[in-house]
Amino acid sequence: MPNDQQHSLLLRALRGESVERSPVWMMRQAGRYLPEYRAIRATTNFLSLCRTPDLAAEVTIQPVDIVGVDAAIIFSDILVIPEAMGMYLVVEEGKGGPRFPEPLRSVEAITRLQSEVSNRLDYVYNAISETKRRLQGRVPVIGFAGAPLTLAAYMVEGHGSKTFNTFKSFLFSEPEAAHQLLEKLSKELIEYLIGQAKAGANMLQLFDTWAGLLPEEEYRTFGLRHASTVLSAVREAIPDIPTLYFPKGVRSYDGFAALGASGFGIDWATDLTRANREIPAGFALQGNLDPAILLTSPENIRESTEQMLSKIPVGRPYVANLGHGIDKDTPVDNARAFVQAVKEFHR
Amino acid sequence: MPNDQQHSLLLRALRGESVERSPVWMMRQAGRYLPEYRAIRATTNFLSLCRTPDLAAEVTIQPVDIVGVDAAIIFSDILVIPEAMGMYLVVEEGKGGPRFPEPLRSVEAITRLQSEVSNRLDYVYNAISETKRRLQGRVPVIGFAGAPLTLAAYMVEGHGSKTFNTFKSFLFSEPEAAHQLLEKLSKELIEYLIGQAKAGANMLQLFDTWAGLLPEEEYRTFGLRHASTVLSAVREAIPDIPTLYFPKGVRSYDGFAALGASGFGIDWATDLTRANREIPAGFALQGNLDPAILLTSPENIRESTEQMLSKIPVGRPYVANLGHGIDKDTPVDNARAFVQAVKEFHR
Repeated sequence: MPNDQQHSLLLRALRGESVERSPVWMMRQAGRYLPEYRAIRATTNFLSLCRTPDLAAEVTIQPVDIVGVDAAIIFSDILVIPEAMGMYLVVEEGKGGPRFPEPLRSVEAITRLQSEVSNRLDYVYNAISETKRRLQGRVPVIGFAGAPLTLAAYMVEGHGSKTFNTFKSFLFSEPEAAHQLLEKLSKELIEYLIGQAKAGANMLQLFDTWAGLLPEEEYRTFGLRHASTVLSAVREAIPDIPTLYFPKGVRSYDGFAALGASGFGIDWATDLTRANREIPAGFALQGNLDPAILLTSPENIRESTEQMLSKIPVGRPYVANLGHGIDKDTPVDNARAFVQAVKEFHR
Repeated sequence: MPNDQQHSLLLRALRGESVERSPVWMMRQAGRYLPEYRAIRATTNFLSLCRTPDLAAEVTIQPVDIVGVDAAIIFSDILVIPEAMGMYLVVEEGKGGPRFPEPLRSVEAITRLQSEVSNRLDYVYNAISETKRRLQGRVPVIGFAGAPLTLAAYMVEGHGSKTFNTFKSFLFSEPEAAHQLLEKLSKELIEYLIGQAKAGANMLQLFDTWAGLLPEEEYRTFGLRHASTVLSAVREAIPDIPTLYFPKGVRSYDGFAALGASGFGIDWATDLTRANREIPAGFALQGNLDPAILLTSPENIRESTEQMLSKIPVGRPYVANLGHGIDKDTPVDNARAFVQAVKEFHR
């Protein structure tokens, strides 16, 4: 499908074209730090908000209007995939995060997961179409999904965890069952991401939030391999949509060039200069201001943002962003100061 | 002072001498996974256990007898330093970890911290002497402390945290006050570690559990710099005691050779082959089996341990260990299987 945003700042930057300034957006930019989001969220629960295209489009567009970001990432959650596959999902924002009260704990439970569930996610595609209709081309729309490893971590553990010991014991003890689960997820993710692109998403991001959960070798076996299946298949199906892979917590980028992604999100703990050195030219970098900086002052934010931007050499495709989702306690003026600092930066 | 364990397997390995096999111990080896520990802990609280040399020596020696490790790390906690400096500390094992109900939240509070508190930690030195007396030279005794950054993180945040946002905002907003706190801590840590060596510790480990909390540049400024102050001063005062620095979560080892440490603990998320490549020859490596492996089966543990040991080339000073503290739910037989696998490994 043609990419209707091909002349946008974001897409030009991702292609490595010379741009007047770096595009900027923020992970979790449609969220609780915005009073306008909280006002809508007060009228409905999190999952209903995801499932109501009118409301989802509204909160998706809020940060474009309020903070001035250069892209709108669709309001949703990575766990809608396991939910569509038949797992009961509970999301109570601020109460320990999302959880599956009946986590996967047996090979049978994995076998019972439903497949070809893409059509159950029509509400996401509809939310994207509605967002596109309302934006009328002002900025591109970003679609996203969770990477297989990260989804599996929640599905087996049942909830967020400091150690994910149940999940890790499962991977280490039953590698075949684990790969079976990861393959099932990969198939659904491919259809889901293609569906988002067909609905109008102009860029796709694959979040591997728990990439740092495993030793490097095991991450390559259980994480990278399946993320690559997804990224390569999506690229083959829709070559003109850029795909960014965000492997939070990884220690090295060996072999990332072959994954099938157009670029990589860099987390805040990684030095951008080192990422720029280790990731081959031509691949886009995205990130990576520490979200904790946004809890300080506009002056501090401007200075840190300029330091970040100075690390990117001319010619490297680059998208300014945070190195993780924006914190719910961030003052809106501080978020604005970050976006503004990117917009005003001159080398 | 002379190191009475200079002929022990641990000290010979740390000096890079040819050894018949790698020495092995486990971080948090004196702890809750042992029924014998829980039996003693049932009679007293955590801090009283630390403060009673007879009991501390007993639990320190338990894993030597029960699991067969090659060194005894003194039973204590990294937070005894801030407590000695005047902060009220609450430790309730299993209830969210240790906390400071009155965390540092102002420059005044930092100024009020007491200094030259080494003599308030006599109970640690006495526990080391008592452990030495009971061990009668069977294995070396390891002393330890928390690195300045890690201690400061707890002192400002007040408790463990996923983000340590309060601490990070403080560092980013008030760098001068932060350095003042880190310098105060460094001074106390130097005296404390020297005190442990004088009491008979044969090796010292500096735990920087929150080294991965900051972006790389900020870690160098706030973490590495002050850890180096401590390590260098200890080395100058007692050159024949090996010092290991354990910076959990770091992404790169640039500049580590100049820190003043004899070696480095490697966390489980880091590939040991890469650590071996990036850390100059002559420095010891210690680690790094994922503690989650110890939750699986003895067969799995043996295989993973052999894979780990195969990554260390002949000639590299090396100590087998986990890549983080042993989990409280680890079956004792699995801990034994790890130690045994190291003892029986032949290239």
